Amino acid sequence: MPEVNRVWRLRKRPVGDITDDILKLDEEGIPEPNEEECLFRLNYLSLDPTNRVWMSDMDQYMPPVEIDAPMRGIVCGTVIQSNSPAFNEGDIVSGLGIWADYQIGSPATVSPLGDTGPIPVIDAFGTFAVVGPAAYFGLLDVGRAKEGETVVVSAAAGAVGSIAGQIAKIKGCRVVGLAGSDEKCSWIRNDLGFDEAINYRTADVPEALVQACPNGIDVYFDNVGGAILNACLKLMNLNGRIPTCGLISQYNATEEVAGPYNYPMILMQRLRVEGFIVLDYADRYPEAIAELSQWMAAGKIKVRQDVEDGLENALQAVKKLFTGANTGKLMVRVEDV
Amino acid sequence: MPEVNRVWRLRKRPVGDITDDILKLDEEGIPEPNEEECLFRLNYLSLDPTNRVWMSDMDQYMPPVEIDAPMRGIVCGTVIQSNSPAFNEGDIVSGLGIWADYQIGSPATVSPLGDTGPIPVIDAFGTFAVVGPAAYFGLLDVGRAKEGETVVVSAAAGAVGSIAGQIAKIKGCRVVGLAGSDEKCSWIRNDLGFDEAINYRTADVPEALVQACPNGIDVYFDNVGGAILNACLKLMNLNGRIPTCGLISQYNATEEVAGPYNYPMILMQRLRVEGFIVLDYADRYPEAIAELSQWMAAGKIKVRQDVEDGLENALQAVKKLFTGANTGKLMVRVEDV
Repeated sequence: MPEVNRVWRLRKRPVGDITDDILKLDEEGIPEPNEEECLFRLNYLSLDPTNRVWMSDMDQYMPPVEIDAPMRGIVCGTVIQSNSPAFNEGDIVSGLGIWADYQIGSPATVSPLGDTGPIPVIDAFGTFAVVGPAAYFGLLDVGRAKEGETVVVSAAAGAVGSIAGQIAKIKGCRVVGLAGSDEKCSWIRNDLGFDEAINYRTADVPEALVQACPNGIDVYFDNVGGAILNACLKLMNLNGRIPTCGLISQYNATEEVAGPYNYPMILMQRLRVEGFIVLDYADRYPEAIAELSQWMAAGKIKVRQDVEDGLENALQAVKKLFTGANTGKLMVRVEDV
Repeated sequence: MPEVNRVWRLRKRPVGDITDDILKLDEEGIPEPNEEECLFRLNYLSLDPTNRVWMSDMDQYMPPVEIDAPMRGIVCGTVIQSNSPAFNEGDIVSGLGIWADYQIGSPATVSPLGDTGPIPVIDAFGTFAVVGPAAYFGLLDVGRAKEGETVVVSAAAGAVGSIAGQIAKIKGCRVVGLAGSDEKCSWIRNDLGFDEAINYRTADVPEALVQACPNGIDVYFDNVGGAILNACLKLMNLNGRIPTCGLISQYNATEEVAGPYNYPMILMQRLRVEGFIVLDYADRYPEAIAELSQWMAAGKIKVRQDVEDGLENALQAVKKLFTGANTGKLMVRVEDV
């Protein structure tokens, strides 16, 4: 057992972009698990747009991380000591934890990953912990995408978007993705099977959407908000749905951001705009994981992890989400399992 | 049979407020009904915020009224000639028609009002043609208001809002209304039984809402959009609903209107914002009318018609909707039945 634990703590709340002074990496002692808890060693740390929300004190769906508290994150680790019948030494667990080499888990925060079959642990964690269920429930449950409909996905080369688009293809939809580089567009169109891909940095997005969606848009899977949301609203069909998974375009804003100018389309086209947080679907994760696993095994869904090595690089790595530098699921790897 | 028919026609599309040059009142011949049609004489003309939408060429849910075409409206009239088995001479019919003394109806556009029992025709038309079903389906079907929840209604002294608030009271909700004068506030609180009323012209609306909604807002019945929508978004509870019935605050805008700054609350609180148009519920009107009739007969819902006499006054009268000068259902009366 080592004596030093590295823990990322929130030093101050970000204003605008995440800067180097927001978090600090402290060296501390190894925590002791209480009754019904376990101690686990970090294998992978998921980096997600919502990390920026937790760092801030904006209105949000959980309490913000407190100043000087460990940074919150979705984690995957190996149990090295257990005082709970829910965990055995050696178990691979995943759930809600902190950005630290060693940390405490309880049945309320983490659960064993279980047998992932032919799927490597890194892919199982990267896909099943957050983004796969978010794509699955967002598209099918909130968005109610149906065969023959046109589905538009923003941040389509991102972790959630790339899976949402592939599920929509499996369900027989026409799928149009927006991404931030020609390379990403090529990946989602050629490797993932999207029908159309739009580079939102170089295209005239409203015009490109008109071209790519000759029958209008039935479901807009919103990961970004902002100008792309506004352009999609304009093209929504009667009774269209906008599952709202994220609004990354405005998380770093330093001033209040105007809502979409085309908001009246919600009325005129009788749209349903509905926000969701995947943690609300915790009870139904097995349903999503079962289907996603089958689709992955059958080659119908391809997943891609964007891996940075070393916990010490987590702060630099998380910035990639906001510059669009990642493709697929961004995470930090401490040690493969 | 008279020889002259008066018909309001659209002369030009409004920019900003409705002005006197938007419509013209022509004198024309009496139209002849074809097979399967009837000719009816106007009794009442409903004036609704959506009239402003139809006059414009903004994105909307029906084709805009064409320039030089008769102005479209919700009408109630008496059949004076029928070539259709659906109508008998003397029937009172209501539905979608035009702003004219004499006009053609068909089974696709109007239907007999039927026996209204103890309810006067003017109240039955005023309540059942549009606004009662809009309030009923918007609150219960789209908004899914439940006992014990807090419901906020904007334009609460208007035709739809005043009924929506009363239905919410019947369902056991805490009901807070926003209206534009102390007199209107007094009416909805003292006569209609709202728990709280906020004069949005004199109050600090965000602060007044905090005071009036100590448990947050579960359903915001949106008739107006704009600043009130923004203030309500800020207070929405987890899984709150925003049935979007109208956005009257921006129908007269001459520039693009920003959407609500608090749009991210849709994500953070997992809200459902859903537009609806009451015409979509045509098949289910009998359900709404049956319940509304019972509540009216039992004195649980009070309705109020804001009546202007004379078709020639329709253009001046419709402006009242946009200055907040009406209380209850605004209509033009040509001849009582």
